[in-house]
This record gives sequence, C-alpha cells and structure tokens, in this order.
Amino acid sequence: MELELLKTLFPNMVECRRYLHRHPELSFKEQETSKMIASKLEQLGVQSLTGIGGYGVIGRIRGALPGKTVALRADMDALPIQDEKNVDYASQIPGVMHACGHDGHTAILLAVAEYYSHRREQLRGEIVFIFQPAEEVFPGGAMSMIKSGALQDVDVIYGIHLWTPIPVGTSACSPGPMMASTDEFIIDIQGQGGHGGMPHTAVDSVVAASSLVMQLQSIVSRSVDPLDPAVVTIGSIQGGTAQNVIADRCRIAGTVRCFNEETRSFIRDRIYALAEGTAAAYGAEAIINYTMSYPCLVNDNEEFHRFYNVGANKAGLVPEVTPKIMPAEDFAYYLQHVPGCFMLVGAGNESKGILHPHHHPKFDIDEEAMLYGACLLISMTESYQSN
Amino acid sequence: MELELLKTLFPNMVECRRYLHRHPELSFKEQETSKMIASKLEQLGVQSLTGIGGYGVIGRIRGALPGKTVALRADMDALPIQDEKNVDYASQIPGVMHACGHDGHTAILLAVAEYYSHRREQLRGEIVFIFQPAEEVFPGGAMSMIKSGALQDVDVIYGIHLWTPIPVGTSACSPGPMMASTDEFIIDIQGQGGHGGMPHTAVDSVVAASSLVMQLQSIVSRSVDPLDPAVVTIGSIQGGTAQNVIADRCRIAGTVRCFNEETRSFIRDRIYALAEGTAAAYGAEAIINYTMSYPCLVNDNEEFHRFYNVGANKAGLVPEVTPKIMPAEDFAYYLQHVPGCFMLVGAGNESKGILHPHHHPKFDIDEEAMLYGACLLISMTESYQSN
Amino acid sequence: MELELLKTLFPNMVECRRYLHRHPELSFKEQETSKMIASKLEQLGVQSLTGIGGYGVIGRIRGALPGKTVALRADMDALPIQDEKNVDYASQIPGVMHACGHDGHTAILLAVAEYYSHRREQLRGEIVFIFQPAEEVFPGGAMSMIKSGALQDVDVIYGIHLWTPIPVGTSACSPGPMMASTDEFIIDIQGQGGHGGMPHTAVDSVVAASSLVMQLQSIVSRSVDPLDPAVVTIGSIQGGTAQNVIADRCRIAGTVRCFNEETRSFIRDRIYALAEGTAAAYGAEAIINYTMSYPCLVNDNEEFHRFYNVGANKAGLVPEVTPKIMPAEDFAYYLQHVPGCFMLVGAGNESKGILHPHHHPKFDIDEEAMLYGACLLISMTESYQSN
Amino acid sequence: MELELLKTLFPNMVECRRYLHRHPELSFKEQETSKMIASKLEQLGVQSLTGIGGYGVIGRIRGALPGKTVALRADMDALPIQDEKNVDYASQIPGVMHACGHDGHTAILLAVAEYYSHRREQLRGEIVFIFQPAEEVFPGGAMSMIKSGALQDVDVIYGIHLWTPIPVGTSACSPGPMMASTDEFIIDIQGQGGHGGMPHTAVDSVVAASSLVMQLQSIVSRSVDPLDPAVVTIGSIQGGTAQNVIADRCRIAGTVRCFNEETRSFIRDRIYALAEGTAAAYGAEAIINYTMSYPCLVNDNEEFHRFYNVGANKAGLVPEVTPKIMPAEDFAYYLQHVPGCFMLVGAGNESKGILHPHHHPKFDIDEEAMLYGACLLISMTESYQSN
Repeated sequence: MELELLKTLFPNMVECRRYLHRHPELSFKEQETSKMIASKLEQLGVQSLTGIGGYGVIGRIRGALPGKTVALRADMDALPIQDEKNVDYASQIPGVMHACGHDGHTAILLAVAEYYSHRREQLRGEIVFIFQPAEEVFPGGAMSMIKSGALQDVDVIYGIHLWTPIPVGTSACSPGPMMASTDEFIIDIQGQGGHGGMPHTAVDSVVAASSLVMQLQSIVSRSVDPLDPAVVTIGSIQGGTAQNVIADRCRIAGTVRCFNEETRSFIRDRIYALAEGTAAAYGAEAIINYTMSYPCLVNDNEEFHRFYNVGANKAGLVPEVTPKIMPAEDFAYYLQHVPGCFMLVGAGNESKGILHPHHHPKFDIDEEAMLYGACLLISMTESYQSN
Repeated sequence: MELELLKTLFPNMVECRRYLHRHPELSFKEQETSKMIASKLEQLGVQSLTGIGGYGVIGRIRGALPGKTVALRADMDALPIQDEKNVDYASQIPGVMHACGHDGHTAILLAVAEYYSHRREQLRGEIVFIFQPAEEVFPGGAMSMIKSGALQDVDVIYGIHLWTPIPVGTSACSPGPMMASTDEFIIDIQGQGGHGGMPHTAVDSVVAASSLVMQLQSIVSRSVDPLDPAVVTIGSIQGGTAQNVIADRCRIAGTVRCFNEETRSFIRDRIYALAEGTAAAYGAEAIINYTMSYPCLVNDNEEFHRFYNVGANKAGLVPEVTPKIMPAEDFAYYLQHVPGCFMLVGAGNESKGILHPHHHPKFDIDEEAMLYGACLLISMTESYQSN
Repeated sequence: MELELLKTLFPNMVECRRYLHRHPELSFKEQETSKMIASKLEQLGVQSLTGIGGYGVIGRIRGALPGKTVALRADMDALPIQDEKNVDYASQIPGVMHACGHDGHTAILLAVAEYYSHRREQLRGEIVFIFQPAEEVFPGGAMSMIKSGALQDVDVIYGIHLWTPIPVGTSACSPGPMMASTDEFIIDIQGQGGHGGMPHTAVDSVVAASSLVMQLQSIVSRSVDPLDPAVVTIGSIQGGTAQNVIADRCRIAGTVRCFNEETRSFIRDRIYALAEGTAAAYGAEAIINYTMSYPCLVNDNEEFHRFYNVGANKAGLVPEVTPKIMPAEDFAYYLQHVPGCFMLVGAGNESKGILHPHHHPKFDIDEEAMLYGACLLISMTESYQSN
Repeated sequence: MELELLKTLFPNMVECRRYLHRHPELSFKEQETSKMIASKLEQLGVQSLTGIGGYGVIGRIRGALPGKTVALRADMDALPIQDEKNVDYASQIPGVMHACGHDGHTAILLAVAEYYSHRREQLRGEIVFIFQPAEEVFPGGAMSMIKSGALQDVDVIYGIHLWTPIPVGTSACSPGPMMASTDEFIIDIQGQGGHGGMPHTAVDSVVAASSLVMQLQSIVSRSVDPLDPAVVTIGSIQGGTAQNVIADRCRIAGTVRCFNEETRSFIRDRIYALAEGTAAAYGAEAIINYTMSYPCLVNDNEEFHRFYNVGANKAGLVPEVTPKIMPAEDFAYYLQHVPGCFMLVGAGNESKGILHPHHHPKFDIDEEAMLYGACLLISMTESYQSN
C-alpha cells in the first residue's frame, strides 16, 4: 500500500465529506450526491454506470495485470434528523442530516477510486466501486445494485462503517453473523364488537390480543436456542376506544431481530402459529402482515481472518472482535451472493468530544477515521488479490 | 283510581310528550323543559321549587287527609343521537333526541300531578313530584335532588321506565337487585421505553398490560360468586406507536357492572390488587383511576310484592318478573335512602312497528303506554297510602 | 289430605329411617335397602318390580277412580363417610353413612305408599313409587329407572330433598333451572420433552398448559351471559417431575357447572376450541376427555306455582324461592321426560343442634321434617289429580 | 516438553484409567479412588494431603528453580448410571459408571505428577495437583478444596475435560464465559382451597401458578440482554388432586442457566419479583426456595490466548473456539479465585465408534486423548512458568 499516496488524497476526502455533510439527501432521493460521484469518477477516468436502483453508481477499474475482482461498497443516504452541530460543515438542509456517517463512506470510496486510478499498471485484477443509495430505509438500495449486475464476476466484497462507539485507530469485525436481520409484523385480531355489559354477544379482541402478546414471549423464552440471540418485540397494541364497548378489533405490531436465517424463518413460523392458534382458540381471526426486511449480515470466516490477522494491521488499525450488533445493514444482501466482510472503523474520539451515537442530532466523526477506512479497504483488497 | 278522569288527561299527555320530543335537551342543559314543567305546575296550582341540581323541579301536593308521603320521579334529559323517525313530532334539534323515553316520563308525571291537583280533598298524605335532570350522564341528577331535600319526609318512592322490549299492556319488575351498578376505570401501566432490539434496557409496558388483561379475567371467573352476576370489560388498550420502539406506557380502560354493593367494592379491590401486583411483578407502576358511577338499583321486596300482587293489576297491566338488567339507572340513589320500586312499563308494539331498542335513532313508544304508566304510579300510590 | 292418618304413620317412618341409618349402603350396592323396601311394599299389598338399574324398586298403586298418573321418587344410597354422631341410630357400617338424608327420603316414600294403600278407593288415577339407587355417583340410578319404564304413562313427577340449611317447617323451590349440571374434563397437553437447558429442542407442555389455564378463564369472564351462572374450575394441574427436564406432558383436570343445557354445550365447545387452539399455537397436541355428567335440574314453572301457591301451604310449610344450587342431582333426568318439581324440605333445627351441612360426618335431620315431606308429596299429588 | 518421557508414561495412564473405570465411585464416596491416588503420589515421592472435602487429595511438587505456582485439577467421581459397554474394563459396580471421563482426568493428572517427579531439577516454581471429589453433585468438591488451602500461593490454574463431541486431536476453549451457572428454584403458591363450584370462597392456586409460569417467560424474552444467553425452565408444575376441588397449593420447580454473574443475580431478583407480585395480585402467597448452585465458568482471556496461540499447538492439538456450553462445572469456583483456563480435549473418534455423549450408558473415550490431555497441561504450565 502506497500510504504516502493515500495521505496526499486525505484533504480531498475531508472536503468531499464536508460537502456531502452540508448537502445531505434522504434515502431514494440522493440525486445531487449521485451526480457528484459520477462527475468525480469521470474526472478520474473511471468508467461508470449511473441511475441504478434510483441514484446508484457503479464504477470499475480494470488493472493491467490479471487477477481477481474485488467489490467495495459505500452507501450515500442521509437521515430525517435536524443537525444540531455548531460547525461550518453542518447540514444546510433543514431536518435532514448525515447522522450515520454515509458521507464519510462515500468520500472514502471516492479516495480509493482515485488511488487505484493512479495505479492501474500495478493492479492485479479489477475493482468494482459500488455507490449504493438508500441503506437506511427498507427495501434499501443493495438489492437493486445486485439485480443490475454490480456483483457480476465479483470474487469478494468489502464494506466498512465508520463507528463512533469505538475509538479512532481501532477496527472491529466478527466472524459469521455480525448484524441482525430485522423483520416487522402487524397482526389484527378480528373479533366481534359488543356492549361492555354483554360480553357473551361479542368476541373480545382485546383479551385475545393480550393473550397473544403473552404467548409470543414463548418464542424467545422457549423456542429459540438460548445461544442464538433473538428478539421479538411488540412495539404497540391498539384496540377499542370506549371503556364500555367491547372492541371488535385489536392490532399488535412488532419487530423481530436475529442472527441466523433459519432462526429467522422459524420465528416467523412461530408467530404465525401462535397468532392463528390463539385467534382460533377465541373464535377470532388473525390477519397477519409480515414483512421480511434486511437479512442477517454474515461475514465470511476466511475474510474475517484476513481482517483480523492481516488487513487491520496493514492499515495501522488495532483489530477487535465485536459482539453481535442489533441494528440491521443491507450490506447483508451482497454477502448472500459473494463472500466478504463488513468492518467497523473506529471514528470516536472522546478527547475531541466526538462521542455521540449514530442517529444522534450531534453525531460527528473524527475525520482521521476516513484515512484508516481507505487504508483498510486497500489493505484487504491487496491481500486478497495477492493470493 | 278515577280512570275516567285519567283518560280525559290523555290527550294532554300526548301533546306534552310530543312537544318535548320535538324539543329535546341534553343532560344538564334541560332549560326549556324545566321551564315548561314549572309553568305547567303553576297552572295546576302546585307549589314547586326549581333550579335544583341544574334544571330540576320539585312539586308537592298535600292532601286534605292525613297520611304518608309518596315521591314519584320522572327524568327529563335527551341523548346526543340524530332522530331518524319520519313523524311530525320528530326532534327539531339536530343530533339530539329523546331516544330513551324520558319525554314520556315527564308527560306522565305532569298528568299524575294534574290528576292529584283535582283530588286534593280525597288525598291522604302528600305527593312529591320529582322532575330530575340528567339521568343519562354521570354523576346524574338524582344526587342533587336528594341533597336539595327531595326525599325529606318521604316514606316511599316510585319510578317507571317506558320499555319497548316488552309489549304495551305488560309491566315488569324484580324484587331486590334489578339494574346494575356501573363503574369505570383507567389503568396506566408505566414502564420504561427503549429500543425494540434492546428489551433489557426497558420495562415493556405492553407485556405488563397484556398480562394484566389476562389476570383481570380471574375476577369474574374465580373471585365472584357465580350466582352473583358481574362483568369486568376492558373496552380499550392503547400502548406504543412504533413497531420497533418498546412502549413506556400502556393504558387499559374498562367498565364494571354488578348487582350488589359488596360485590362492587370487592371487584374494585380486586382490580387494584391485580393491577398493583402485576405492575410490581414487572417492575412497572400502575396508575389507577377508578370512578364509582351509579350504584346497583335495589327494589324493596315489599314494594315489589305491592307491584306484583296489586299495583299492576289495578293499572290494567300484566305483571312480570324481569331478569336483571345490565344498564344502570340513577333512580338507584333514591332507593338507597327510602324504600321503593322501579317498574318497567311495556311500550313496544310490533303491530305498529314500535320495536326499536332504547338509544336507537328510530326509537319510539306506543303512547298508550303513558296512560298505563300514569295508572301504575297512581295505583301504587293509592295502595301505599291506603294501608 | 287425611293428616291424622299420616300422623299415625310417623312412628313407622322414624323407625324405618333409623333402621336405614344404621345400615347404610353405598351407591350401586343397596342390596339390603332394596330388599327392605320390596318387603314393605309387599306387606302393603303394593305390586312392585325390583332389581331395576341394580337395586331399584318400582311400586304402583292404581286408584279406584280414573285420573292422572303421578310419580314420586326417593333415592336410597349412602356415602363413603365415617359417621361421627353419638346417637343410637348411628351407622353400624364403618366408613359408610347416610350423610345426605336419603334414608329419610326412602322412609317418607314408604309412608306415602302406606297412606295410599289405605286410600285406594278415593284415589283418582295412579301413583308410581320410584325407589332409585345410586344418586350420589355418576351415571346414577335415574337413567336406568327411566329405561326400565318407570315413567311410562306418568303425567307428572315430584321429588323432595330433606335440606338442613333451611329450618324445619319451611320448604324451598325455584321455577325453571334450580340445580347445576356437572361435567368433568381431563386435558393432556402433549408436547415434547427435553433438557432444561435446551428449550429449543423441546415443546414445553408446562407453558402450553399454563397458558390454557389462563385462556379457560375467558369462558366465564367473556363468553357466557353474566346473568347465566356458570363455573369452570381447573382442580388440578400435573406436569413434569424434575426441575431440570422439560416436561413432555402436562395434564389439567376440571369441572363445569351451569344451569342451562345450551350454555352447557356451549361451554364444552369453548373448552375444546381453547384447548385445541392453544395446543396448536404451541405446536403441541390437546387430548381431551370430556364427560357429560348430570344435566341441569329444571323445574316446570306450573308445578313450581303449584308448590308455591298450594302444595306447601296445604302441607303446613312456609314456601320460599331458593337461589340456584351448585350441586347436581340426577332427578334432573326425570324432568327431561315429564314435567314436575323438585322441592327442598327444611330439616335443620338450630335449637336441637341440627345444623351440619350435607356430607358432613355429623349430618343429621330433624325427623319432624319427614312428616312435612310426606305431606308435601301428598298435597302436590292431590292438587294435581284433582284438576 | 519431554514428549518422549510422557509417551513412556502412557501405558500407566491407560492402566490407571481402566482400573478406575472398573471401580467407579459416586460423588462424595470416592474412598478407594482417593486411596489409590494417595498411594501413587507416595510412590512418586510427592508430598500430599488427603481427606480434604471428603476424599480430596492435594499433592505438591516444588521445583529446584524459583518460579510461579501452577495448580492443575482433576475430578474423580462417577455417575449413577449402569455401564452398558461390552469391554473388559467395563464398570464392575452395578448402577455406577465413569460416564463423564473423570477416570481419565485422574489418570492424566497422575501421569503429569509422575512427569514432574522426574523433572524437579528443571522445574521453575511449584505445581499443585488437585484431585477433587464430587464434581457431579452440588455443592461439589471444589469449594472444600479451596477452603482447605488448595489455591494458597497459586498463581494460575488449569483444568481439562475429555470431550467426546469433538474428535481426538482437537481441543476447544473460549475466552471469558464458557460454561453456564445452574441455579434451581421451587415456588409454592399458597392460596386457599374450596369447592369446585364455589370459586369465590377460595383462592385458586392453580390459576395463580399458571399465570406465574406465563410471567416467568418474560425474563428471557424481555429482561435479559438478547446477546447474553440465559434459560429459565419450569420443569414441573403440581397442584391439586381432584377435578372438583380448588387446589390450595400449587408448586412450580425450575432451573436457571446463564453465563454472567450479574445476569444470574438479576434473574433471581426477577423471579422473586414476578412470584411475589403475581401472588400478591391473586391474594395468594409465594413461598420461594432458591438455590444458587455452580457459578458461571469464566476463563481468563490471557490464559485463553495462551491456549489458543501456544498451549494447544505445543501439545500437538488443533485449537478451536467453542460456543458456550449449557452444563455447569465446579471448576468455575477456582476461577473465581485465581486466573486460569478450562479446556476441552477431544476424545471422540467416529472411526473407532467412540461417539456417545457424556452421561450415556455407552460413553467411552479414545484413550489417546489422555496423552494429549497430559501434554496440554504440561505445555500450558511450561508456557506460564517460562514467562
């Protein structure tokens, strides 16, 4: 890795990231961000496809030497949060903010593209640069990128996330399952309304739904392997409006998170069985609306070892094994198709006051982390292609 | 009973009832109804007090002969229902309607007052005419009437309700408990909110509240004497708004109905114990708001026998024993102070198409029932005073 | 009624009752009791059939005059209870005792047979004397008696129960439903066993059964009319033996009581639906064993009125309306075939210390009650036949 | 490590293990095993203490060179299982069997003692040989050994378990928590008995206990971090005997397993709160009997790294990271006092038909595993003492 070369690209990275930070765009609306990326790639002489899955951009650099194809992915969308930071690069768009670091991801990947644009002669194989829109909102941008051929002939994929909960200079990853799948469901228990004083003329949907909430606890407490983390949360229950009228319908809505596709299907099946069995028991009906959202993110074990034993060190980072993480990430879709690895790059810095969690209105990153991030992507790529 | 005399008063009764039917007034707003009553009593030379408990009116006729004091009560308020009848006496007030027959009750009691105004010489003792406002809405008008002395020196009280579920020409009553008490409660389970994927950082109010709904079933199923009818209904449950956020607070609201003041207190105590115990179990808090509304209506056994063996027959009515009735009635308050009897007077007539239940937008009465109602009040009064 | 004649029979009644009290026989084992009854009827010249439904005896007296046929029924079995009374007529059989008054019932019916054996000339119609075995134990003796033709050509049937909760000299009955049906059920929840630390390999029958217990509460609390008394009790729950092994099977066993055959079927259907739905929800199986035992005892309204207005008075008894009674009685079967009436005859006497409830080891009756009982059967019969 | 020396000791190891296999002794009854160990140590000239915590033996070898003190532990008790193997070294004691490999552990540790008895001159520091009784049955032997000073001046402790689920030649360990704590509880819900038809006179313990079973599910489903594995199992529920009698008392008994002492206390607290809150809700009483058994086994991270990077390799073993294990192990107590590491040594061999799980009546080990086990203890010791 030509670290000196990368270092000269750092000021551009910062400038690019701050530009994006000032001009954040919501998921599926990343029009200007996309234009900026495409224009930058054009300047670098990198061939690219645009308008993929909305505003996605794919660039490719083919090296002079034969070798494997590595995909690198950045996401680019911002969040519906009002920026509360008092810095000159604060968001200029009211109620929209890069509060998750995707601006940095884009800046890093552009810098890596610039790096490789200068080193085509030494490059063995090919690099695919995936600038993906809409990571924050299901169905996300990853599936569209894949459908459009982003992974064609790709041998391995790497992605990073700037991560403020760990300090700049460290990096974390986990072999196998690392981030949770996130599914959502709505269950309407349809009973029959009636006068509060005449329960026998009604089918009380509030009682049936309450019973169902209790039964659903058994999924995690009894049906899932205790060593296989899972969550079933009923976030809301809504039934009836009057004290004295038996509610004909009661709705519960919830979320499921786990780290294993088999467990994921199994939990969904249990929810159906419990809802249908309970409704039948009460003479009511369960109308179930179940949405499978992002899958579990599962790193390839070999690629994890590459990170842990080679990649991080070469990038000057201290590697750590991260515990599993409950939030979901649509990078998971790419890993369903090709092996690879998703790595957290420390971006927190207590001494600089950079400690707000992701999605916080004062979220910021230590920009040094971007240099580490670029180094990590390059060190992983080089390690892979040199094999 | 001078039936001929009463019959001559019938056209007035009908006119009076229809006037009120055209000009219904909601609970606690019976201004014009009250004026009409007071003016009519004045015409009859009956001394009266007005403005009691809002728009209540109390008239008194003292007989020439010594004897007991009998109170007769009519209620006068209408309901927030749009009249859908196609008759010339339909309500002229949009969204307000005499859909419970209180117009008839007032007309009947005015006719009885007119009857006795002509028979002071033969009257033994005294009659108190209680025109009570606001029966439909807690706290009702009865308590105010009582506080204002309506029952002073009263020995017995009678009230009737025109009742379309039974045919004109019949009358029903029950010894002891006849109509339910109605209490209401709101319980807020206050837990602690949290991220849907991190239940251990939260106290899930939806689970605790659902558990409470299940536990509350045990009151009727286990704690109350099966021979002592009672209802505990949770009319609504509301907690949380997002699928993926654990709700910090969940509210359940319900109603309690029973036929016995001891049972009533006992159920309230059980609700407190179950809510507090369940909340404590989950590390949450139960904030309970319990409103004791109308008490159980309990007829005096002797007065029931007067109705069953004497009163109904003398009024030309076929007497029946009614099963207990779940709706509440604030006549119950009077019966907590003096013995008496509340009687249902058949006002339905299928052949005339008069069959809609109370509170229905097409509710009407067979006006013949008013003559029976007046006769019944007079026959009960005469029987009592002749003892 | 020839009261003087009856009074002369009283000493025999006492002697007979005391003989039976000394020699109690358990349900379906009433051999000697049966012999004694048959022998007595023979002495009286009453034709009889024996050996019906075990040890049942049916006698018939046809009057000289034409008329209706009235059946009178007595039961004759004792209970597996140790007599703790200190009287010379205490039970001589260890662990067996007439603790429910059936000895008295038999003595009364024999006295009535003797009465009518002296009055065949005046008798209009016929009397059938049903001495039934095995009232205390399902399936009881009534069904066999009926199958054997005990009710052939019978127009009406009367039965009495000596009743210590009310004082001698009073009698109680109720129109319509008076005594509960009693059904029993056993439900095995068949799951799958497993290691206590590996719940995901098992289907936890304890959790499914516990859930079912909670759901079953909804039958009485929600599904049955609050004015229609019903009880569903889970008397036992048994599942698992070790703390650390998940139980493959959990059994709940319970009883159902109510006062209405429709409600009875409905509750059974609800139990099936709740058990099957809950088991399905948990991926377990519900094996249900449901036994319909004695039906609700429903008196004929007209016969109740005969009792209340005529029969009791003529027998010198003060009539009362009894609240519903939870214990069951197989007299109910007769009333499914012919109209009739089951009456409680006061047998308590506090001043004599006769106040123990039925089935108590010190249970006794005030023997005067037997004279009243005989009078009541005769007064009912005479009233019916004189119509 | 003088591997050649060790290899010469292998035949003795096998002989010793087979001797113990033929003569298994139950927990707290290891009299002959203890004698054999003490006698062997005496032969080797190793000073020892006997009779510790029952039949425990502690030997010490002090090296000629200064250095750290390393404790090595073997357990020695057998299980109440009938040996079903058809080998000449099968158990000769009916119903007692070394079905968990403790015979091998003892043989290994004696071989290691022999090894070091030949190498006192080269030994830096001291070795403590802990032969512990009663690992299989709470309260176990470890606590007594510790109280008796087994860990005095000890710097580090190692233990191994022969493990048939992984093949001979491999070894597994985990940093931090590796084996679960195991606690047990019995909760009696004391209500009030009553007639099945009169629930209002009783406090139904079956309903309250069933409710508690449902509430207890919330501990794992809601209160514990989903990433922190835990199990709460109700192994048995027992209440009532008759279908028609309300049970005055219902008992539930269960087990708790987790991997973290804070979680362990927290779960116990939740069980108390849920039991007491639920009992209070129903007007019943919860009598709780909670036994804290073996704690979580937590390996020292540094010692895990020694195993993973050095120890296993030097012993010729392939190291693996094991997932967490639900069974408990009283080696956990030692690790509460000094750092150390508990390692699984592969003892399965499918090609030899050695594949039965621990506690199986056909359980056996590939005896080659003993040589690996001894090597691992020595390689760990040497690595530690050479620092």
